[in-house]
Amino acid sequence: MYYYDKRLQYPVRVEKPDPLFARQLQQAIGGIEGEIRVCLQYFFQAWGARGPSTKYRDVLLNTATEEIGHIEMLSTAVALNLEDAPATLQETSAQANPIVGAVMGGERPRHVVEGMLQRHLLSTGLAALPVNCDGVPFDCSHVYASGNLAGDMFCNVAAEATGRTLAVRLYNATHDKGMQDMLSFLIARDTMHQQQWLAVIEDLGGLKENLPVPNSFDQSKEAREFSYMFVGTERSGTPVQPGRYAEGPSVDGKGQFQFKAFEPLGEEPVLGPARPDSAAQKEQMAAPPVTNSKV
Amino acid sequence: MYYYDKRLQYPVRVEKPDPLFARQLQQAIGGIEGEIRVCLQYFFQAWGARGPSTKYRDVLLNTATEEIGHIEMLSTAVALNLEDAPATLQETSAQANPIVGAVMGGERPRHVVEGMLQRHLLSTGLAALPVNCDGVPFDCSHVYASGNLAGDMFCNVAAEATGRTLAVRLYNATHDKGMQDMLSFLIARDTMHQQQWLAVIEDLGGLKENLPVPNSFDQSKEAREFSYMFVGTERSGTPVQPGRYAEGPSVDGKGQFQFKAFEPLGEEPVLGPARPDSAAQKEQMAAPPVTNSKV
Amino acid sequence: MYYYDKRLQYPVRVEKPDPLFARQLQQAIGGIEGEIRVCLQYFFQAWGARGPSTKYRDVLLNTATEEIGHIEMLSTAVALNLEDAPATLQETSAQANPIVGAVMGGERPRHVVEGMLQRHLLSTGLAALPVNCDGVPFDCSHVYASGNLAGDMFCNVAAEATGRTLAVRLYNATHDKGMQDMLSFLIARDTMHQQQWLAVIEDLGGLKENLPVPNSFDQSKEAREFSYMFVGTERSGTPVQPGRYAEGPSVDGKGQFQFKAFEPLGEEPVLGPARPDSAAQKEQMAAPPVTNSKV
Amino acid sequence: MYYYDKRLQYPVRVEKPDPLFARQLQQAIGGIEGEIRVCLQYFFQAWGARGPSTKYRDVLLNTATEEIGHIEMLSTAVALNLEDAPATLQETSAQANPIVGAVMGGERPRHVVEGMLQRHLLSTGLAALPVNCDGVPFDCSHVYASGNLAGDMFCNVAAEATGRTLAVRLYNATHDKGMQDMLSFLIARDTMHQQQWLAVIEDLGGLKENLPVPNSFDQSKEAREFSYMFVGTERSGTPVQPGRYAEGPSVDGKGQFQFKAFEPLGEEPVLGPARPDSAAQKEQMAAPPVTNSKV
Amino acid sequence: MYYYDKRLQYPVRVEKPDPLFARQLQQAIGGIEGEIRVCLQYFFQAWGARGPSTKYRDVLLNTATEEIGHIEMLSTAVALNLEDAPATLQETSAQANPIVGAVMGGERPRHVVEGMLQRHLLSTGLAALPVNCDGVPFDCSHVYASGNLAGDMFCNVAAEATGRTLAVRLYNATHDKGMQDMLSFLIARDTMHQQQWLAVIEDLGGLKENLPVPNSFDQSKEAREFSYMFVGTERSGTPVQPGRYAEGPSVDGKGQFQFKAFEPLGEEPVLGPARPDSAAQKEQMAAPPVTNSKV
Amino acid sequence: MYYYDKRLQYPVRVEKPDPLFARQLQQAIGGIEGEIRVCLQYFFQAWGARGPSTKYRDVLLNTATEEIGHIEMLSTAVALNLEDAPATLQETSAQANPIVGAVMGGERPRHVVEGMLQRHLLSTGLAALPVNCDGVPFDCSHVYASGNLAGDMFCNVAAEATGRTLAVRLYNATHDKGMQDMLSFLIARDTMHQQQWLAVIEDLGGLKENLPVPNSFDQSKEAREFSYMFVGTERSGTPVQPGRYAEGPSVDGKGQFQFKAFEPLGEEPVLGPARPDSAAQKEQMAAPPVTNSKV
Repeated sequence: MYYYDKRLQYPVRVEKPDPLFARQLQQAIGGIEGEIRVCLQYFFQAWGARGPSTKYRDVLLNTATEEIGHIEMLSTAVALNLEDAPATLQETSAQANPIVGAVMGGERPRHVVEGMLQRHLLSTGLAALPVNCDGVPFDCSHVYASGNLAGDMFCNVAAEATGRTLAVRLYNATHDKGMQDMLSFLIARDTMHQQQWLAVIEDLGGLKENLPVPNSFDQSKEAREFSYMFVGTERSGTPVQPGRYAEGPSVDGKGQFQFKAFEPLGEEPVLGPARPDSAAQKEQMAAPPVTNSKV
Repeated sequence: MYYYDKRLQYPVRVEKPDPLFARQLQQAIGGIEGEIRVCLQYFFQAWGARGPSTKYRDVLLNTATEEIGHIEMLSTAVALNLEDAPATLQETSAQANPIVGAVMGGERPRHVVEGMLQRHLLSTGLAALPVNCDGVPFDCSHVYASGNLAGDMFCNVAAEATGRTLAVRLYNATHDKGMQDMLSFLIARDTMHQQQWLAVIEDLGGLKENLPVPNSFDQSKEAREFSYMFVGTERSGTPVQPGRYAEGPSVDGKGQFQFKAFEPLGEEPVLGPARPDSAAQKEQMAAPPVTNSKV
Repeated sequence: MYYYDKRLQYPVRVEKPDPLFARQLQQAIGGIEGEIRVCLQYFFQAWGARGPSTKYRDVLLNTATEEIGHIEMLSTAVALNLEDAPATLQETSAQANPIVGAVMGGERPRHVVEGMLQRHLLSTGLAALPVNCDGVPFDCSHVYASGNLAGDMFCNVAAEATGRTLAVRLYNATHDKGMQDMLSFLIARDTMHQQQWLAVIEDLGGLKENLPVPNSFDQSKEAREFSYMFVGTERSGTPVQPGRYAEGPSVDGKGQFQFKAFEPLGEEPVLGPARPDSAAQKEQMAAPPVTNSKV
Repeated sequence: MYYYDKRLQYPVRVEKPDPLFARQLQQAIGGIEGEIRVCLQYFFQAWGARGPSTKYRDVLLNTATEEIGHIEMLSTAVALNLEDAPATLQETSAQANPIVGAVMGGERPRHVVEGMLQRHLLSTGLAALPVNCDGVPFDCSHVYASGNLAGDMFCNVAAEATGRTLAVRLYNATHDKGMQDMLSFLIARDTMHQQQWLAVIEDLGGLKENLPVPNSFDQSKEAREFSYMFVGTERSGTPVQPGRYAEGPSVDGKGQFQFKAFEPLGEEPVLGPARPDSAAQKEQMAAPPVTNSKV
Repeated sequence: MYYYDKRLQYPVRVEKPDPLFARQLQQAIGGIEGEIRVCLQYFFQAWGARGPSTKYRDVLLNTATEEIGHIEMLSTAVALNLEDAPATLQETSAQANPIVGAVMGGERPRHVVEGMLQRHLLSTGLAALPVNCDGVPFDCSHVYASGNLAGDMFCNVAAEATGRTLAVRLYNATHDKGMQDMLSFLIARDTMHQQQWLAVIEDLGGLKENLPVPNSFDQSKEAREFSYMFVGTERSGTPVQPGRYAEGPSVDGKGQFQFKAFEPLGEEPVLGPARPDSAAQKEQMAAPPVTNSKV
Repeated sequence: MYYYDKRLQYPVRVEKPDPLFARQLQQAIGGIEGEIRVCLQYFFQAWGARGPSTKYRDVLLNTATEEIGHIEMLSTAVALNLEDAPATLQETSAQANPIVGAVMGGERPRHVVEGMLQRHLLSTGLAALPVNCDGVPFDCSHVYASGNLAGDMFCNVAAEATGRTLAVRLYNATHDKGMQDMLSFLIARDTMHQQQWLAVIEDLGGLKENLPVPNSFDQSKEAREFSYMFVGTERSGTPVQPGRYAEGPSVDGKGQFQFKAFEPLGEEPVLGPARPDSAAQKEQMAAPPVTNSKV
């Protein structure tokens, strides 16, 4: 069960409202690198956690719950950045409406509106909504919760790595001291979250112990001659440029990397003819001459 | 530019066609853990690769191109698994149509159809399509290509970890020798792909050098007192269970993990009143008593 | 079955074409508050209407059919607003192409294009399309037709309330007399539609008779001690601010509102361990110490 | 900021796990009538609330926070219902794997798997995910937060009306005592939530005061002759069947309902010819004979 | 403006309700080959039609309006096929509820429910909804209305070709005389619609006159040496199998088909280094050795 | 299996980078008229091809493989057009950062950013991504592969017709010589692709032989009196304007076009009452007076 405190996790101040920056902040709310995603991802991983103890469920719940507060902070920041946005396209309204008289350092209202997410004006009355910076709604297919703990941790590191990259880009895009302060906090939290998910892998025994994911599959069943082979698909057979990915011991310590310019091992596939009841064209219904790919 | 060879990368054989397994294989084609996703992800990372050499672009192109062949193998497997599927719901059709007379080891056609993806019958004429195992089309928002090389590598490891988890589940779900053979190859390739993307991080200098992602942001600008703090959000302040994520040196070697039962540092946010031209209710247009969260 | 009349339901005139306003109008076509949604929503409610008479089916068909005409009016308005839009980004084209010579009161073509929905230029040849003002296609999951008549009426009131809010915002955004005239008609129709769906609830016996929705469920089966309780989730137990929602008789007249700072009644959930065939990590496969949440 | 308690808001017990019921429960998690939707909807309404006091923000936060706990309860219920699900399609596995030996009261594993959401097996390792009962991911475009308080309340009543309708259908679909107990609680909460959002409208002054939504638009600007007219679109001009929606005073008390078999007031629209630079066919580029719909 | 007649365009009868066939019919409502798509496609083409006369707008409006009636027929057919569907999963309910006592010729309710679209039970109360046969909502991005009349006609032929293919598969799937009768009508209409859109191209001057689409682009500006070349991408340079597509005069009569095993004409692309403010890894920020693909 | 060559199929040069044109190019990558769509469409048609020979599979593979190279060319063009884009909204940054000092011919950075796809800045570090020009991700439901060869060919012609229309609009929008050169090649390829898919229909026996699609359905089963009838739905019964679509022999040579002002042949549909277990309102549960549409 969950509880709220009216106060924000960290202060959110905007010195000079900027509706274009409000649009950019939306990526951190409803973008694939954003906070709704990590919030729901950690929650669904927690609620489905199976294992010998509730330890990792607990770790996940602590951070999932923190993330709600991040969506709240960013949504507050969006609303504050929209406070002086013009509601009309026409020049004259700037004169008519003293509130928007000095919009955006003298810009004409039309130019300010052009850069806005139009739904900020038309759908929310100047507030945040769960979409990305180009207006695409967040879609929960991005909630990765595979039931494999190590796999999920890599998903979480990936999410926090792209999340921190986004936060840094937002930091670089603004000169507003209030916004930079808020982002300096969110960037720090993304630093920690990258660390803590990698630390869970250590807690589980470390990289070698946990790779390949899943570590519960008997590797004698996989076609091991291909398990550490860098497959070259350059048409002329040119080897890949030398690097750690194609030489030396594998990261899991269970094999040796090698390069191979690959040639097809299978045959040309031949499917059966179209069936009379399948609404194909008549021409498709004769049998093919040879069907060698099906035993 | 790209070229094809008519032959498959690895043999695809189906001993006993099973339309329900055809449905499950769709997850490996059009699911978020599937091959269309990694194929496009590696291509877009390659095509946007910026850096001092084309080295990593080349690595990515080799594997992206390999993945097209995996979609091809799986699509072939789906079509072969659908070859004896019934096209009608009625019992009598089994007698009338000798092709489907011995469907699925004596199952009534209706039961076989019930378990199928209906679009395999109605939209494709018994072939694969780019959707997941429950019929949801693949959506390219899942192509992660952030422009940050290390971040992208973590995205790739995550994709291959969930991909191998899926392939193992498919292997466990079938008893068909042909399908198990094909999956033993794909599982091996997922092993290698997990390895090679981690090896790229080694090639770039290793984990410590590359964390936190992005490593080009000056950490003195982030609020470092929060960069290695495990934030506790349990209502009663109970600490998280002990573990590597909350004690000892951080994984990047730049800090010490610590736990803190967090208390809000911000205030209750207060937004400005609704504007007369914003189509709010009249009651929302008076000013709030205090507006302390905006400087 | 359906018929058309070539004439519009109400005149559509544009005095000064504005491609940015064309973009904003798209929200009223393909937005979640728009006309495609209500049109299809009323049709699907009508086509699935079950009940003692065809009375409400008839009410719904009248209005659903009217709404097609509204999409038509708005699509016409979009096309007229796009008539003078520049097709090229370059300054020089304004000189070269007399048609776009005096674009938008002297704006440079590039600035006009910046504010446009790009697909108006690239995908439609300067006409409307079924997307919202930020380019997101309408998605029919927004067609609410629950099979419960009262529930559907509330969905319809909600749709018309957000629809009229949108129409008012569009009215406020433009100074074009033709567009304001068209919107004054659409706003009036949204007024009526809010009224008529509420009137259907009256026709069904009124609010008290129809609440809670569905009214066909035997309330003795619900956990009635929670049916009129305002559940407080403020961490410190602070009561919600006094208001009608937490005191006095309930709106359906069947209970008394009360506030309660809620404490969890359930236990910590404990799921079974991961199964050997489920591709989890090995560590997840041991049994948890206690499994108290499953009888 | 937010906090969690490890315990569930209300007990969740499953007597006889049923993977098909697990699938149906998904509608209450990730369906448009489900809990993720109301949770995010109330949060975004709260975070964007503008008005003279924080009163309604507070009301919304209490309930939004409660809803997280409902998603948690349902996700737990899904995982418990999946505990004995078969992971393989083959008959023999039932013998081989004692865990699934007595699956579903003697059903063959294949039949049990046929009814399942395939992603429960393949993507989650037997746990919930944020999709609906047919596997479609939740999409945040369903988060209605219009910035108009009364409009939002109608959206909330609509959400809770369809939500309770769904919960009743789930209650009717199962005979499991544990699941019925959990649903009796959720149904009760949906009762209250319908009540409390209607009570907020009372708190704002009641229906008449707040209609039409938005009440801040000067109705003298709308085309009032159409504001209370039931528009008939039956081809033969037959009036709608008599009812409250077409006779008597309007619900807002500001007009009288009347029926009118409507005739078009506009003209046939005529757009300008296609422009030479618009990639139309040549035939489309001549001017139309008359252009009477554009002033 | 639009009008309705209460009667269906063609009779809809169901002899033996079948909820699995109801699910399959959904593809013809909300599938990409379905009726919502063509209805909206023809409407948006009509509403955006630009040209010397309103002739083609009129053709499109006639058929768009007809298609509403097809969605209505199919939605009625879905509701009738759902009339005896079980609402519960348990065996005993069949005994308890006489309405569903003889469900589906003696099938156990559970098996009938397994094959259903779950939302037919949970979201609609046994009626149609605008989704496809696997539950995916229709998405208006499939409304093709390009502003090019000939291009649109090909889109329409394509839609009717896949539409008739679907209708034939539905006809083959059922033995219900009523459903076959309805489908025999819809199949006939799809025949006509294929014909009439091809006839519009004839009306515009025929294939040669209208190809390539758009015919308003000056072909001297295109790289004509590639305009009739069949590009071979087989790795070994093997020519495509002989056929009309690689030999003889082109279909538009403006060139001669020829085959060419293609070799790359461009160079390896080299992008600039990552910028310091772009949140890349440090390693990406050095300049590449050569940048030859940018002038 | 597939192979790559590092070189591009055709040179890609950008003379004057323009981030707004980068946005427009996205439509040719991830738009419904774009290259990802045709690439995947041809691949899935090839991989599912059933018929007497592998001839058409081979044709499709050649072109599908070519299309990968087109996505690559366009992605390269996007990245090159973004090279000088500003990363910040503020005026001062133009002075501070010499790289962006002369952005866009003197435009202020803010204006340049306003016209950009925000995700080009925030999600990719100045590179392409698989979305359209308004930021909507490509969705694989647009991959049409019906299993009917002639139907698929019409889908392919439609895709190339809208694709060439888009390419021409992009050509018209830019004055950059490099971009025009690249587009002149892509336009030529779209010319050929329109030709070759029509040539496949010729190869199959021509239009008359293949119409109506599918040609394997026995037309005696369709309601042939409606197979060549232009159905008029104009309310007053006014005939459609004369044209090839309503007079003369049908295109398939199997009938004569005729016009008919259509009157409904069916009755008003009447569904059964709502069931007690379906969570409808009580009022919906009485039986309707007459049920004449169900035999």
